Amino acid sequence: MKSVQVTTPNKSYEIFFDNSYDQLASKISLMNKNYSKILIITDDQVGPLYVDQVKIALKALAIDILSVSFPNGEVNKNYKTINTFYEYLIQNHFDRSTLILALGGGVTGDMAGFTAATYMRGVDFIQLPTSLLAQVDSSSGGKTGIDFNGYKNIVGAFYQPELVYINTETLKTLPSEEFASGMGEALKHGFIQDKDYTSFMEDNIEAIRGLKHDALASLIGRSCEIKAGVVSEDEKEHGLRAILNFGHTIGHAIEKLKNFEQLHGECVGLGMIASSYIGTQTGDLTEDEYKRVVNLVTSYGLPEYVEGLSVEQVYQELFYDKKTKHSTINIVMLKGIGSCYQNKSLSKEFILEGLKTILK
Amino acid sequence: MKSVQVTTPNKSYEIFFDNSYDQLASKISLMNKNYSKILIITDDQVGPLYVDQVKIALKALAIDILSVSFPNGEVNKNYKTINTFYEYLIQNHFDRSTLILALGGGVTGDMAGFTAATYMRGVDFIQLPTSLLAQVDSSSGGKTGIDFNGYKNIVGAFYQPELVYINTETLKTLPSEEFASGMGEALKHGFIQDKDYTSFMEDNIEAIRGLKHDALASLIGRSCEIKAGVVSEDEKEHGLRAILNFGHTIGHAIEKLKNFEQLHGECVGLGMIASSYIGTQTGDLTEDEYKRVVNLVTSYGLPEYVEGLSVEQVYQELFYDKKTKHSTINIVMLKGIGSCYQNKSLSKEFILEGLKTILK
Repeated sequence: MKSVQVTTPNKSYEIFFDNSYDQLASKISLMNKNYSKILIITDDQVGPLYVDQVKIALKALAIDILSVSFPNGEVNKNYKTINTFYEYLIQNHFDRSTLILALGGGVTGDMAGFTAATYMRGVDFIQLPTSLLAQVDSSSGGKTGIDFNGYKNIVGAFYQPELVYINTETLKTLPSEEFASGMGEALKHGFIQDKDYTSFMEDNIEAIRGLKHDALASLIGRSCEIKAGVVSEDEKEHGLRAILNFGHTIGHAIEKLKNFEQLHGECVGLGMIASSYIGTQTGDLTEDEYKRVVNLVTSYGLPEYVEGLSVEQVYQELFYDKKTKHSTINIVMLKGIGSCYQNKSLSKEFILEGLKTILK
Repeated sequence: MKSVQVTTPNKSYEIFFDNSYDQLASKISLMNKNYSKILIITDDQVGPLYVDQVKIALKALAIDILSVSFPNGEVNKNYKTINTFYEYLIQNHFDRSTLILALGGGVTGDMAGFTAATYMRGVDFIQLPTSLLAQVDSSSGGKTGIDFNGYKNIVGAFYQPELVYINTETLKTLPSEEFASGMGEALKHGFIQDKDYTSFMEDNIEAIRGLKHDALASLIGRSCEIKAGVVSEDEKEHGLRAILNFGHTIGHAIEKLKNFEQLHGECVGLGMIASSYIGTQTGDLTEDEYKRVVNLVTSYGLPEYVEGLSVEQVYQELFYDKKTKHSTINIVMLKGIGSCYQNKSLSKEFILEGLKTILK
């Protein structure tokens, strides 16, 4: 597994796997884009660890490489931070032939991507995801954006990168709760589309949590394949892509009510448990399948419960999730392990029962 | 001339000409998009004149139509105004099936388009241009954006509308200096691509300035055809589209140095005069052709000179124009009337001589 291809109507690009940044310069050279300058956008946690490595790896390109940093965290994923990037770009005379590199986790990728999508009506960018969440999920697919007034990703653009370059070595410096958060999305990929991949994650908990190279390569590679397959079929979420929202409608509601202080993958894990419980009520899942979901989520260090929220509060928030249309709630439901569908007609009672299982 | 078609790689749409909003509802119905709600974005000058007309014309659609307004003027074309639109959209639960209508001049179209491009990663929008500038130029082509820190359109997106619906009656309420500003772009279309169209504008000054229906219909129709032809060939300004920048490199520099207080078309007119003078030095234009340019620009009420700027000041500003790459100045030059090319190697002396002709 050295690479996966994402193909959208306007652009085809590679997700490349490596255990260093050694091949990044040659990948950029091969694009033949004649970039005038490169800006690395990173945060104050990832930057000190990897920005020099990236700059050294790119020395061969012999063009100006600057970097700009912002304070780590979802709370900074807003237009104020984006404005600091615009200011930096303008002050340093970055032009239309700029290449932006997003070095960091999902927040960095979303913001650097949105900056690339909107600076001078669009410049190229490359994703260098350093968190598991970004590697298995957010760095591919072209969703970019920022939060606004507490609404997650309500402002943004579909804008595909030129390349996603995954250096799995960066996971060694990732805090364990962030690793667990990324597993939330990896588990989701198995649950919605791949029974064998789910079994693989069940059978290799030790190796994966122990960051064994082979296990990680299989994990990230398979997740990227599933994500790329869905995105290639439906770039702009008109249909199929919505299945990637498994666990997310409820997850986003919790994330918002917790002021984005709870990790994304943790909220998705909670959403997957609640939706799966609802599945046992609707007859879509057996009790055993539901238990597999709960066991997998908790085995990877994700919480089974969240405190301090009421069932009604979360339920009401579901109507304001941006994936919701016309005041109905749209929840992706498993149909057994490895298959799923969208359910827009769940009764309030079923949803409340599901929420009760994760609220303490 | 009832309509012109714009065809880009991802979208084909119509520029439709009318003298009312009577056919707008049926045009929207024919799109079969099942919109959940419509938001009209307008300003506090155009809104009071036309927003009720549009709402009445759309009654047949039987869906919620809301409107939001901002204070007229380029000075408000910034992220603060855009944020008020996001807030309004969120507070009123606008979802992904939203249709945005841009009712107004170029500033409104640019901002409403950028809002459409970025709200929930993109919703549909329709241009209802009410100024001559917007009708002949900015409403088609998909350039959307805002100014930032004094840099014009430095933040934005290429995002095409679903339809451009031109009601020429709105020109009757347009201030005469705004009409003249629009003529700057119409003249540009003739100068760069169409000798006959240029002659038409020379021969019909009275009729056009007198807002005679037939003359206006010919004018707007022909300008839209030229614009649509260029955009259809090169949506994202990788090549041909740059010819639409005739008069703009110098024009933008003046606009910026004048803090956007001088009308866009006036600055473009000045830029066209200066570039044409340079053309007499480079041998691209005869003295007579240069005089035709000056006569046409001034005959339509556009200024021949601008006060309070120094030649060196304007020259230095040219390097910071966002159309400029790699510290060279790129100026579109006429090659006779009706033809043009890009010149990236003009000497400083030539450029200074050109600037001298328009600075007082």
